[in-house]
Parts: sequence; structure tokens; C-alpha cells
Amino acid sequence: MKYAVGVDIGGTTVKIGIFEESSKLLTKWEIPTVTANGGKQIVPDVAKSVLAKLAEMGIDKNDVIGLGVGAPGAVDENGYMGGGAVNLGWEPFNLKETFEAELQGIKVKGANDANAAAFGEMWQGGGRGYSDVVAVTLGTGVGGGIIVNGKLLAGATGAGGEIGHIHLEDDEPDTCGCGGHGCLEQYASATGIVRLAKRRLAQDDAPSVLRDSEISAKTVFDAVKAGDKVAIEIAEKFGYYLGKGLAAVANVVNPQIFVIGGGVSKAGEVLIPYIEPSFRKYAFPPCRGAKFALAQLGNDAGIVGAAGMVL
Amino acid sequence: MKYAVGVDIGGTTVKIGIFEESSKLLTKWEIPTVTANGGKQIVPDVAKSVLAKLAEMGIDKNDVIGLGVGAPGAVDENGYMGGGAVNLGWEPFNLKETFEAELQGIKVKGANDANAAAFGEMWQGGGRGYSDVVAVTLGTGVGGGIIVNGKLLAGATGAGGEIGHIHLEDDEPDTCGCGGHGCLEQYASATGIVRLAKRRLAQDDAPSVLRDSEISAKTVFDAVKAGDKVAIEIAEKFGYYLGKGLAAVANVVNPQIFVIGGGVSKAGEVLIPYIEPSFRKYAFPPCRGAKFALAQLGNDAGIVGAAGMVL
Repeated sequence: MKYAVGVDIGGTTVKIGIFEESSKLLTKWEIPTVTANGGKQIVPDVAKSVLAKLAEMGIDKNDVIGLGVGAPGAVDENGYMGGGAVNLGWEPFNLKETFEAELQGIKVKGANDANAAAFGEMWQGGGRGYSDVVAVTLGTGVGGGIIVNGKLLAGATGAGGEIGHIHLEDDEPDTCGCGGHGCLEQYASATGIVRLAKRRLAQDDAPSVLRDSEISAKTVFDAVKAGDKVAIEIAEKFGYYLGKGLAAVANVVNPQIFVIGGGVSKAGEVLIPYIEPSFRKYAFPPCRGAKFALAQLGNDAGIVGAAGMVL
Repeated sequence: MKYAVGVDIGGTTVKIGIFEESSKLLTKWEIPTVTANGGKQIVPDVAKSVLAKLAEMGIDKNDVIGLGVGAPGAVDENGYMGGGAVNLGWEPFNLKETFEAELQGIKVKGANDANAAAFGEMWQGGGRGYSDVVAVTLGTGVGGGIIVNGKLLAGATGAGGEIGHIHLEDDEPDTCGCGGHGCLEQYASATGIVRLAKRRLAQDDAPSVLRDSEISAKTVFDAVKAGDKVAIEIAEKFGYYLGKGLAAVANVVNPQIFVIGGGVSKAGEVLIPYIEPSFRKYAFPPCRGAKFALAQLGNDAGIVGAAGMVL
């Protein structure tokens, strides 16, 4: 039997999973992310925990095909993180080589965490059975990962699939986190939806259940499901921008399927009919047939994808 | 010695080249494209011409690593042309298999012609030395080809890199060839530049040498080089849209370099300073460092790239 290890390094915890070659998850656990002292402890902590678990399970290191690791920053093809990882305190360094130095011969492959999760969704989740997949993460921001012919597209500086900053609106007065104006993320992230909702509610006095509740992506889509007209207008605006942005993505990489994940996607299938009309309008006809699906792996996408990358 | 054959099928002629494995072009020639009768003669004509030339040169078929072919339509990873090729009269069929049936054991790889040319520019032209390249063809339309980690991105339906129909302008009254409004191609193609020029000239009576000449991409950029103020405004508009469109491309695939080819690129280095400011403004910071270069292979890009694909 051969095995793979998947690691997903977050700002608070590191998720780790041991998988059989067949993709079966044998065990998963978490350790705290120690960001003190420039995050220097993180890699040795993970390596130690992995080696201890393998020993405990009686798995020989020679039977481990590799360890895949997703980290919250850009990771290039060689495992180098040229921008470090702000959330972990990491300066630029080589993630792959640093891990390999601690892992007693186990081969390592690194990727951006969103890309690893995208790979997981392609391999075992919403994009299963497809080889050309764009995974879209609608969370605090909008991230993504692109799989071309079964392989992750890392990009020159590891920023492949970072689609949240595609420019969509010339007349946006608010400034995006990147310093720009009118980025996809300003409309399609959880915070973007709240912004759209507040803007719509301030526009007139039309009745809406949203006037009596805290506004979040969840309350907006709950109101949509309940037939609230104002919430439906907000969802239409969200879908207009997201569909337009994904049409631009389709016109570049021509995927078979978009897999929508992240916190916003918990709203479920209700999202997709708001995205599709705008997508079909703005996508070039040969790219217009791309399917839409929801992500299925939730918080496990990162460890599943990281392990999948080495198999 | 091993060899490769590169074929570039156009609407009027088919260009063919025999290359050494080292990439050295040994000979190139053209045969007419016979589009009558649904273009059924094209593949047998090319195959016969190639086999005759190999025999004439004393090259054993077993020493031919493969034949690459670029065709004016979408070609998927398996060589299937799901949309046929309108200019050639082709209905949907498998280009690779049809060629292989005629070629007595020589392996064939098919690609869209713009993608093959893009591959050529990466391998031997303006993108030499890079592995993550976006080639942009500014001709009658705007096409492109994307190379990720040294490999062509074909896309689900073979439309990968067909960036000409990225939507950029909500307020465009004219209709694009695709039926949309505000596509990149409406501003950055040769015909798009003429359209921008006519629109600008109709706006007021500002003096310009363009008022006395036939308007083409060439006369516009000749006037720019001569310091004509109106022409410079037209070039700024062209560069604004092209830079914005390529920023969207960069935010998806994060290339190392853009290689600008096609008829418009004959204007030369003068183009690039008009594209870069808008590109840098709209590109996500980690993607902003992409370089710009001009294509170098001219009409040979197609045969060079087609041969390169099989090597």
C-alpha cells in the first residue's frame, strides 16, 4: 500500500490528512499554527507531527509517495514563495525545500492554498470527472484555482487563478483591498455582497426583511429564498458581476466547468441561476457551454487537493 | 538525425516546413488550399505533398518524430474540431486521425492555428526562454494563444486563448462579429483601430494627417510616429482597451510575458508604451510584472510552432 499526505496551512490551524493512494482519507487532524517569530516554527511543527503520525500508524516513510502542502501565498512551480505569506509572518523562502529538509526523504510539492483546494475539488469534489476546471472561492475575498488538462496552473509568480481582481466596473467609487476600483471581489465576495446590499437598501425605502436583520451573504440569500424582492435585486447585481467576471475567465482558459466554493457558496444551488444569464451573455460562444457546480469538500478541499497533487 | 514537419493551413495556401530536431528549418513550401467540395481534398493534398518531399530529401518516415498542424478553428486535445473550420468548408471531424490515416505511420498533433503560432513564438520567437507566455495576435480580429509551463492551453472546446471577445465596454453601440458589444477585438484589431480612428475624426475638426489619407492601422501608427496629436489620441484609446484586456488575461493565467504579433504589430515598438500604462493600472499587483515583446517569426510562426508541438 502507498500513501500521500495533504497539508493545509491556515492562519490559526494547520490541517493534515493521511490518504491511501486510492484517495481514501485514513485520518485527519489539526495542529495550531504558531505565527510568532516569523512563523519559523510552522514547518518543523508540521513535519514532526506528520512523522509521529506515520510512526503511530505503522506506515513506512518509503511507502509515502509524497506530501502536498497548500499555503496562504503565491507558490511557484519550484516551491518558492516570492511574496512570503503575510498571515503567517513568512518572509520569501522555498516552502518545498524547507519541508523536505525536515521530512527524511519524503518528496514535497507546494501550492497556493486556494489552488490546492481547487485541485481537491477537481479530483474528488464538484469537478470530479473533469480535467479543465476553474474553482472559484467566494469568501472574504474572491480567489480561485485553475486546472488545465488535470494540472494546476501556478502562473509566473504563483498568482494563477487569482481572479478576484479582474476589473469589471469603471464607475466604482469604493476602493478595493488591492488599491483598484471595480474589481470582481468588490461584488462577489461575502463582504462585496454586504456592500451591494447596503447600497441597495440606502437607495430607497422599499420594504425588505433585510432592514430588520444583520446583513451578511447568508441573510441576503436566505431572503432571496424567501422571495424578498430587494434581496433578489441584490442577488441579480451579484450575479451580473460574477457572471461577467467568469465570462472573461472562460474567454481566456475555456474550462469545462466552474466549481463555486467558499462561504458564500453555502447558500447552495440558489446562486447559480443568478450567475448564468450574465455568464452566457458575456462569454464567447465556443466558451459558453461551461457548466456550473457547487464545491463539495468544504474545509477538507485543501488537504484532499494537497494530497492529490503528489499522487 | 530526427525530423519534424510543421503545417499551417490557411484559407488560400497551406504552408509546410521540414525541421531538424534542433529546430533548424531545412525547407519550406506552399500548396494551394482547395476549399471546394467541403475542403475534403486538403488533408490528402498536404499528406501527399509531405510524403513526396520527404522522399525527395531522402528522409526515412521512421526518422520523422511527428507532424504538427495548425488549422483555422478550434481543435481539442484529441485533435477533434467540434466546430469544423468555416473558412475551409470543413464540417466537424478529427483532424489528427484523418491526417494519420494518410501519413503511413507518422504521428500527428493538431492545434488551432493561432495557438500553433503562439507556441512558435514561445519556442523560437519573441517569447524564447519563457515557459508561461500569452501570444496576442492583432490582425483582422484579435486572437491569441496561451502557453502554460511550456505547453499549449487548448481549452475544453479548443477555444483557449481566444481572448478577442473579453467584454470591456458597456457603452459600445456597434456590434462585434460575435454578436456582443464592447469586445476587446472592437478596439485592438486592425479593423478596431480604423473604427476608433473614424470615430475620433468625426468628433471635431482637429487637424490630422489622417484626414488626407486612407485610414488603416498602419497609417494611424505612421501618424503617431510623426507626432500627429489626433493619431496619438487614437493610439491611447487602443492602448487603454488592449492594456485593460491583457490585465484581465494576466489576472487569470499570470504569464511571464506577452508577445504581440499580427499585422498591427508591424508598427513595432511604438505600440508598447500605449499598452503598458493601462495594463499596469488594471493588473493585480502580483501579475503586473509581465513583460511585453513583439513577435519575431512573422508568417513562419505557424509552421515553426506546429513542428515545435511534436518535438
